[in-house]
Amino acid sequence: MNGPEAERQAAAAVSASVSPASNGAVGRSVPMVDARERVTGSIAYALNFELPGTLVGRILRSPYAHARVVRVDTSRAERLPGVIAVLSRNDLLDQDELLPFFGPVMRDQGIVAMDKVRFVGDPVAAVAAMDDDAAQAALELIEVEYEQLPAVFDAEEALEPGAPILHPGPPRLAGGFADIVLNLESDTNRLNHFKLRRGDVEQGFAESDLIFEHTFRAPAVQHVPFETHVALAQVEAGRVTVWAGTQTPHILRAQLADMFRLPLAQVRVVVHTLGGGYGSKCYPKVEPLAAALAWKARRPVKIVLSRSEDFLTVTKHGVSIHLKTGVKRDGSLVARQATCYFNAGAYADISPRLIKNGGYGSIGPYRIPHVRVDSYAVYTNIVPAGAFRGYGVSQGAWAYESQMDIIARELGLDPLELRLKNALRDGDQFATGETVHDMHYERLLEDAAQAIDWRERESEKVRAVRSAGVEAARHSLIPSLPHKARGRAITCVIKGTVTPSTSTAAAKLNEDGSLSVLTSSVEMGQGAKTVLGQLAADEAGLPLERVLVSEPDTDTTPYDQQTSSSRTTYSMGVAVKLAVQDVKRQLLELAGQMLEASADDLEAGDGKVAVRGAPERALSYSDVMRRSRRGNLLGQGTFATTGGLDPETGQGIGSAHWHQAAAGCEVEVDTETGKVEILKFRATVFAGRMVNPRQCELQTEGSTLFGLGQALFEEMRYDGGQLVNPNLSDYMIPSFEDLPKDLSLNIMEAAGAGEIHGIGETSVPPVMPAVANAVYDAIGVRIADLPITPEKILQALRSTETT
Amino acid sequence: MNGPEAERQAAAAVSASVSPASNGAVGRSVPMVDARERVTGSIAYALNFELPGTLVGRILRSPYAHARVVRVDTSRAERLPGVIAVLSRNDLLDQDELLPFFGPVMRDQGIVAMDKVRFVGDPVAAVAAMDDDAAQAALELIEVEYEQLPAVFDAEEALEPGAPILHPGPPRLAGGFADIVLNLESDTNRLNHFKLRRGDVEQGFAESDLIFEHTFRAPAVQHVPFETHVALAQVEAGRVTVWAGTQTPHILRAQLADMFRLPLAQVRVVVHTLGGGYGSKCYPKVEPLAAALAWKARRPVKIVLSRSEDFLTVTKHGVSIHLKTGVKRDGSLVARQATCYFNAGAYADISPRLIKNGGYGSIGPYRIPHVRVDSYAVYTNIVPAGAFRGYGVSQGAWAYESQMDIIARELGLDPLELRLKNALRDGDQFATGETVHDMHYERLLEDAAQAIDWRERESEKVRAVRSAGVEAARHSLIPSLPHKARGRAITCVIKGTVTPSTSTAAAKLNEDGSLSVLTSSVEMGQGAKTVLGQLAADEAGLPLERVLVSEPDTDTTPYDQQTSSSRTTYSMGVAVKLAVQDVKRQLLELAGQMLEASADDLEAGDGKVAVRGAPERALSYSDVMRRSRRGNLLGQGTFATTGGLDPETGQGIGSAHWHQAAAGCEVEVDTETGKVEILKFRATVFAGRMVNPRQCELQTEGSTLFGLGQALFEEMRYDGGQLVNPNLSDYMIPSFEDLPKDLSLNIMEAAGAGEIHGIGETSVPPVMPAVANAVYDAIGVRIADLPITPEKILQALRSTETT
Repeated sequence: MNGPEAERQAAAAVSASVSPASNGAVGRSVPMVDARERVTGSIAYALNFELPGTLVGRILRSPYAHARVVRVDTSRAERLPGVIAVLSRNDLLDQDELLPFFGPVMRDQGIVAMDKVRFVGDPVAAVAAMDDDAAQAALELIEVEYEQLPAVFDAEEALEPGAPILHPGPPRLAGGFADIVLNLESDTNRLNHFKLRRGDVEQGFAESDLIFEHTFRAPAVQHVPFETHVALAQVEAGRVTVWAGTQTPHILRAQLADMFRLPLAQVRVVVHTLGGGYGSKCYPKVEPLAAALAWKARRPVKIVLSRSEDFLTVTKHGVSIHLKTGVKRDGSLVARQATCYFNAGAYADISPRLIKNGGYGSIGPYRIPHVRVDSYAVYTNIVPAGAFRGYGVSQGAWAYESQMDIIARELGLDPLELRLKNALRDGDQFATGETVHDMHYERLLEDAAQAIDWRERESEKVRAVRSAGVEAARHSLIPSLPHKARGRAITCVIKGTVTPSTSTAAAKLNEDGSLSVLTSSVEMGQGAKTVLGQLAADEAGLPLERVLVSEPDTDTTPYDQQTSSSRTTYSMGVAVKLAVQDVKRQLLELAGQMLEASADDLEAGDGKVAVRGAPERALSYSDVMRRSRRGNLLGQGTFATTGGLDPETGQGIGSAHWHQAAAGCEVEVDTETGKVEILKFRATVFAGRMVNPRQCELQTEGSTLFGLGQALFEEMRYDGGQLVNPNLSDYMIPSFEDLPKDLSLNIMEAAGAGEIHGIGETSVPPVMPAVANAVYDAIGVRIADLPITPEKILQALRSTETT
Repeated sequence: MNGPEAERQAAAAVSASVSPASNGAVGRSVPMVDARERVTGSIAYALNFELPGTLVGRILRSPYAHARVVRVDTSRAERLPGVIAVLSRNDLLDQDELLPFFGPVMRDQGIVAMDKVRFVGDPVAAVAAMDDDAAQAALELIEVEYEQLPAVFDAEEALEPGAPILHPGPPRLAGGFADIVLNLESDTNRLNHFKLRRGDVEQGFAESDLIFEHTFRAPAVQHVPFETHVALAQVEAGRVTVWAGTQTPHILRAQLADMFRLPLAQVRVVVHTLGGGYGSKCYPKVEPLAAALAWKARRPVKIVLSRSEDFLTVTKHGVSIHLKTGVKRDGSLVARQATCYFNAGAYADISPRLIKNGGYGSIGPYRIPHVRVDSYAVYTNIVPAGAFRGYGVSQGAWAYESQMDIIARELGLDPLELRLKNALRDGDQFATGETVHDMHYERLLEDAAQAIDWRERESEKVRAVRSAGVEAARHSLIPSLPHKARGRAITCVIKGTVTPSTSTAAAKLNEDGSLSVLTSSVEMGQGAKTVLGQLAADEAGLPLERVLVSEPDTDTTPYDQQTSSSRTTYSMGVAVKLAVQDVKRQLLELAGQMLEASADDLEAGDGKVAVRGAPERALSYSDVMRRSRRGNLLGQGTFATTGGLDPETGQGIGSAHWHQAAAGCEVEVDTETGKVEILKFRATVFAGRMVNPRQCELQTEGSTLFGLGQALFEEMRYDGGQLVNPNLSDYMIPSFEDLPKDLSLNIMEAAGAGEIHGIGETSVPPVMPAVANAVYDAIGVRIADLPITPEKILQALRSTETT
């Protein structure tokens, strides 16, 4: 046994190696280590840092969705008192200090517009000034001459012949990531194409009793973290330093090194903490522009985006997914063809990867022998889309879990039974061909169902259908719709984590035997510092109070690929434990010399090293450290997952392990106003093993609210490429008013010492289809186009009435 | 062979292990890596950092030199708008969150006055306010009732019976340092006593032909770094974070951990860079008060001392040294008794250690068979004294090198010959009983002498003395004194480095094969980052541009005892090289797997790993790193010196190796005004091996200027315990006007690949006696009490005339 399976088991062994001692930190709901600072507002975000002489950076943005930039004249702006530097393409052409393009996968994004602007809001120039007034005034003095070009906003339209091409010529690859599957072409808006081919989908449809074809749509939405994008940059003497609110300090470092043609060691990215991320702060965003301005100004520059600028920086992918699913009359899924159009907006960002997750994420946690997926990332003239909590899987689940209910109703089956019948079980193969383990869909679905009294009520409904026939039962609902109609639904999803990926950690045992853990995992309110501290504490045999988890600083903290993909507790958790084991090994060596015993005969715990079986022959960690005069001991740990998918078939290893969740939802629909109220919501997620139960709950609660906003009202609305609601008056996010009356959570653990699974986002994708299915259950209308607004409900009710 | 000798040789081997390849970084005068930021003012000092909601901290100071604090009433100050917190002993009594005393060796210093004030300027209370105006106004509203006590300002007087005792009761030890020799007593101002006993000093005097007894005095002086003391502190949820301008981040961390009863891991000290240190920023200074204010205010507090407050914070020790030296007529030194009174001021700070260096530092680089030293640190009611460039050795050398010239003149010997006759040579034993190696006094003295044409002119003088007799020759000078009289002198010194001590470093090889070096060495303008980078680059086989040396951050950077004692290039240099070797070993292991070769058959250099003898079988560091998917590799290195002196005899190992310097000086004394002009100065220092010749020169140049200020005009002047010149109008430091007309430097290297010696301060101590001896040579009067002011010269000339 080798490869991913061996590694999975090794990781499981490490992540489960802490004995669940009653006095350990793991498994306890200790408060977040920075809770007090966070709630009192004394915590320092990137926003709060300045350097001597820091200038204010401001961005001039394109008013056009697509235009050639004919001329940029910054001379009037430069003469304005208080203005130190104005950056435009004029500074970036014909020089070789700075590569003016960036992007985590494709170098397709200019620091400022180099030839064209590609969306309303695309940066064209930027000003560094003594204060905000001067900077704002200078923006108005920059003269830009544009030549407007035809624009395209819809992904499917962008692929039609004759559509304007945003990025003509061959794609410019930046290097990128081991896990990304690329199928590139020149001179097309189709910026990447993920293919999954399993079995023979045509044969599957031929063997099916019924074939269901539907299209599901979801709009772009915004992450809306409390803290907008912020970067403070200094470029000086062969060094670039950026204090940034980023989830990916090492990727940002690599991108800036590429841009400035510097070794990685000469680029420093410091991350204090984030006021939320949700994917929006992955990969370079405002940092390259801040750094380029600092380079031009020869002084530090800080850019803080306004809320409306944040909306113009990154979004979740809007999508349309065509699902064609063949089933047997008994409900067995036989074949599925999924065609997914992810609207990437104007630049690639991480779309080339996301369509893979969205592609295999259109299949769901089901055994389907014949599968064909074509998932496309498409350039259009809107705000670039990027990582977003749920990462492509939300969009896929929206489609397949909506369709699962349609199928169940059509077949006269209990939607729960249909899911249970097809759900993946241990030893099954996922659509990617990999064998899955540790599958818990039966428990998850039963829990979600039970929480909303599903079986009892569903059995009544099924009895009604059996006695009246499917069509009659469906239509019988309509005339009898009450003012407030109630409905229920259950959904389930499967989600991968970025694979392969690498996390490294270091552990520094101090002179007094306390422990400092060095990681580049980003704390953004999700509690990374706390859970990594808990894992380190138990591994070290120390109370949590004696453990510190550092902030990322690429000068000093070890490599981590990224804080995203629900990977931190799992991947960095293992790396941290390995690092602590490494330092403990060194401690035992030193103690062995002092205790005149072999290190193998020693055991470490409770802050002491003792000879096994002779507890009186013991030294505290502090004694060993001080007597050794070593100052400190340093251990390192690396955890790298392996895997990857074949670019032609999508077969291989898609994820180091699979995240699983289910939801139960009961809604009440006001048939007069169209308003949907969530009466009851159950989020159930498999955690393997909880490091901090309270934090697991908070993450799951947050995921649920995230999903509810997207289910009911979140939507970036464009008018001819112009975003019309880039603010929190016109763009709604859930408030406490929108909380379900009865929200309950179940974080499931494995029997025994389970492997730790990340759960940072697994509970987002089940929410939107759960709401849509419950609405259908309540009023018999199917909303296939998010969000499920009162207007759409009323319109659907009216059209049903007129049918 | 083991112990210090083995270690010395091992360290020498490591520090010399870089082959002096013409393309290496070591040995080249590369510009300081932060030169541009430093000279353009864009470098960020602690001064430049703030956290959200940072308050201004201001200190109320005692107007009395010694008084009991009867009552402190802060209520009026607290009511002032804008005042957030007022800290006094009222907050610190009867609580157990905070230990209100600190000090690196003795816990004798209150955060604010707890029972008494002990010098004019002693902090009594402190205010944290929204702005400086409010803070200043609040200080005036704090009511303090004092009961004045008798005070004592002179160290010898403070030891007399009946002198007021500053710290009654038993000494409170803080823990402290492995190298410090303690001889403590209760209820005395004698806070520590260093004893050195070698041979039989009484027998020595009996065997001597002549006995010389003199007392030499030097006043307290101030370091005057450009940047005053600054600390920004945050105390929150079991964590203390301090951004400070400190030379000793790890000692400060330990002190704050002690004070707040926290594990080391929960105290973070971040040091960006310092605007000079010179010893003033060693050990806690303003940081405990900033942290206590932040604790009381529950908000971050920043304290920036004014220049006059800096004068009230720490000084160099004023001293009186009684030297009794017995010699043979041929000039052989036979016996010396030194009694040194170091005026420690009101608190111990590092005095308990410094008197050791000052004690063995009163013997000089000479073979003296019979030695007795009693070196005392004495509490008095003046500003506390602490570490200062030259560290006790300056004071000792001032005495012994002044007396050496007196002896030579008295014996009719050439002062150069007298020194050469007695100077330590390889294999000799120093006064501490340790065998010395790598002694270069002959070269050093000859160089200094030659630079000022010593031998030629001295021989004339000796001829004159021989023909006229000693007394006649001396007195014959007086009547013939010209308006401008010229004189010359040469001096030499020996200086130890703190031993034992520990430095650790880590080396992080990044994915692109560039290298980040993690150290806690503090960059304070001396070039630590540059030389450590040079050493790391050559060890790693990388160009300097691909190497980064981090800033200290105790959360992430490894332990280092302190940046002082000229120990960084030597001790941290070895640690860095060991860390790089460790990471290279790991790199070769990985490369071996890829190249299918044993790691032993591989060699690393020029950024590539190649099979020995088959250069075509090679991989770049970057290739190895990326293919390994390890993210980075981490190596560690520890260098700990061993040694220590016996508390009763001062015998043992005083220093891991010995720093050596000489000076040649020619002065012109204006006999009408008393003004001394330095015509020519030669500083000669043994570097073993230069890492960066230009930086060695700059350090030596700086040391010389430091010494000239102390020789000619620097002096903290007190009036009844009140410092009367705490500002740069009344306290002079050298300006470019004071530069010698002809200043030349000679940084000597060993033949072959020498061990690296620190030279950060070795050239300070020779300066003051060189000037005094040259003045004597010019005008025949001996100034034994620094500084050598025009007033003293005129007075001495007058008293000579009247004799």
